[in-house]
Amino acid sequence: MRVLRLLRPPRPLPAPRLRPRPRLLLLGSGAEPWAGRSWQLPPPKPLSVLLSPHRAMSQYSTEERGSPHSPQYRLYFKNVAGHYISPFHDIPLKPESKEEKGIPTKKARTSEHEEVFNMVVEIPRWTNAKMEIDTKEPLNPIKQDIKKGKLRYVANIFPHKGFIWNYGALPQTWEDPCHIDSITKCHGDNDPLDVCEIGSKVHAPGDIIQVKILGILALIDGDETDWKLIAISIDDPEASNFHSIDDVRKYKPNYLEATVDWFRFYKVPDGKPENTFGFNGEFKDKDFAHEVIESTHKCWKALLHKEIDQGGIKCVNVKINDSPYCCSEEEARSIVEKASASVDKDFVSQEDEDINKWHFIKK
Amino acid sequence: MRVLRLLRPPRPLPAPRLRPRPRLLLLGSGAEPWAGRSWQLPPPKPLSVLLSPHRAMSQYSTEERGSPHSPQYRLYFKNVAGHYISPFHDIPLKPESKEEKGIPTKKARTSEHEEVFNMVVEIPRWTNAKMEIDTKEPLNPIKQDIKKGKLRYVANIFPHKGFIWNYGALPQTWEDPCHIDSITKCHGDNDPLDVCEIGSKVHAPGDIIQVKILGILALIDGDETDWKLIAISIDDPEASNFHSIDDVRKYKPNYLEATVDWFRFYKVPDGKPENTFGFNGEFKDKDFAHEVIESTHKCWKALLHKEIDQGGIKCVNVKINDSPYCCSEEEARSIVEKASASVDKDFVSQEDEDINKWHFIKK
Repeated sequence: MRVLRLLRPPRPLPAPRLRPRPRLLLLGSGAEPWAGRSWQLPPPKPLSVLLSPHRAMSQYSTEERGSPHSPQYRLYFKNVAGHYISPFHDIPLKPESKEEKGIPTKKARTSEHEEVFNMVVEIPRWTNAKMEIDTKEPLNPIKQDIKKGKLRYVANIFPHKGFIWNYGALPQTWEDPCHIDSITKCHGDNDPLDVCEIGSKVHAPGDIIQVKILGILALIDGDETDWKLIAISIDDPEASNFHSIDDVRKYKPNYLEATVDWFRFYKVPDGKPENTFGFNGEFKDKDFAHEVIESTHKCWKALLHKEIDQGGIKCVNVKINDSPYCCSEEEARSIVEKASASVDKDFVSQEDEDINKWHFIKK
Repeated sequence: MRVLRLLRPPRPLPAPRLRPRPRLLLLGSGAEPWAGRSWQLPPPKPLSVLLSPHRAMSQYSTEERGSPHSPQYRLYFKNVAGHYISPFHDIPLKPESKEEKGIPTKKARTSEHEEVFNMVVEIPRWTNAKMEIDTKEPLNPIKQDIKKGKLRYVANIFPHKGFIWNYGALPQTWEDPCHIDSITKCHGDNDPLDVCEIGSKVHAPGDIIQVKILGILALIDGDETDWKLIAISIDDPEASNFHSIDDVRKYKPNYLEATVDWFRFYKVPDGKPENTFGFNGEFKDKDFAHEVIESTHKCWKALLHKEIDQGGIKCVNVKINDSPYCCSEEEARSIVEKASASVDKDFVSQEDEDINKWHFIKK
């Protein structure tokens, strides 16, 4: 008889519960396709539950403007003092070790002295809406991407449902489109570095989580390099078992193969060709990944100090004091208010049954 | 270069939009885990949107009692006249050809003269809550199964998310536990026949849809036969391309293999052994499936006419006039009111992050 083994690595001591980020709802309403569209949704939990006092307060919060899944929807970020910030520029690449306004921040290293990075979650696992930090809007809120005048959803390609990891970006990194990678020979894609977080928990758009890096994949999208980091939240119950890309192979078999497949085919239902990869689609290790992070962090620094042409990127920030784009808290508030003034509160998102279609590709 | 082909069978003429079932919300509140638990949900659409006049009225409606994902939650069924019915006994196995109260019913055959059956949807594709017709409660509402005192959710086994089809049952069928199948040598599982609906649309619990049968799988669960029909909604945009189990292989490659894998492993994370199959896990064709339907429909008829020991099954119905369990509309209403009187309106479903865990099994 075939021996079956459920992969359950030795479970470490219980991890502390993730600190929920208080979320302020302003105009949130309408259907939420990533949460299942075809039947009625229950009312949201009251704010009192979300902000119950026994939960530790997070360092960052988000504020919604516009109806979810409308072109006007924006998710703005605030710091602990309630001031608007840019998630692209004002959230540090590595968690700060000093306390901020009395709230202890995450350590920049885990107990095993592994480097820890902040990750901005844009897209929850198993969802389809292409939510992303808008690099070209001041203060860089998260919004849903629009292609050809329509809100963008990625197709479900069998056997997968939506994104197969929590997907997001490392703050304070930038893949410079003028920089040609010495290995891939391709330009940067003009965005922050993308991250695939492989932990158990499904995170929400706008969550700031702390991750350690396990490896990296070189996706080639047209003539652009679009690096995809593989990472795991340091608060995942099994995080202490993951130290390298090989540990993903060991404890989550076929996840890396599925990841390559996912990126190869995800644009095919939209009529695009297959994507290709640098290094024959092989994952590079975490040391290599750290070098890519370091290099893109330097590009971001140069961008913020006006050493590089902006290329449409909005660099307005409130915390990078020596940047010419640094603005006051008041100016930041006025940017949000101005951008939100024209929001259509009554937008009803269009039903589109194609979002739930499962595409079958003969490989 | 490898040739890639996106499987898109010739698209027939546009199908009519599925008629949405009006849903009456009574006490619906609380988190809905199948819709994603980890961030705040938007408020439901107003009833006026759901019941907008341009949508044709369905023959059946449902009514919720208790909070979703509480042990008290029940989804009761009503006919077009607003009278409570049992989805197990009072919805005909085949759509009736006569009009009911002025509303034309679905044809019992498609244009290609294929037999059409009613299916009661219990579980939407990609969700985890084990919702099912309760055979042991009068009027057989849909409720969430409870195992060892806890609400039951199926585990996600990589690469799958929840159930990989719309899952439900054929009304007026019953797998008699006293009947030993001549082929599988196993007892029936005391439930209506299960159906895996493979169409594109994600259906809601309580939807009554019309399906045609493509094949059947003989799952052996312990010492019970638990047949799994493979079917497709006749309203699916691609329904006219599907006439046999081979068409599933042709247009949805690997779906049948994934189906066998899914049923083989789905109880392993709960500490149970792998399931096995009759016929070496091979799918039988639709003629075989129709025979199983016919045989289980006969068993149901005998059950309703008290020719067979009930074995705990509640046979109360309002439409099977020659059944000794037939009751009046008034009696049916009183059953619902009595059952709902003790409902705990303030139940808050427990958060359980394990629902979102992805289990990796080394095969």
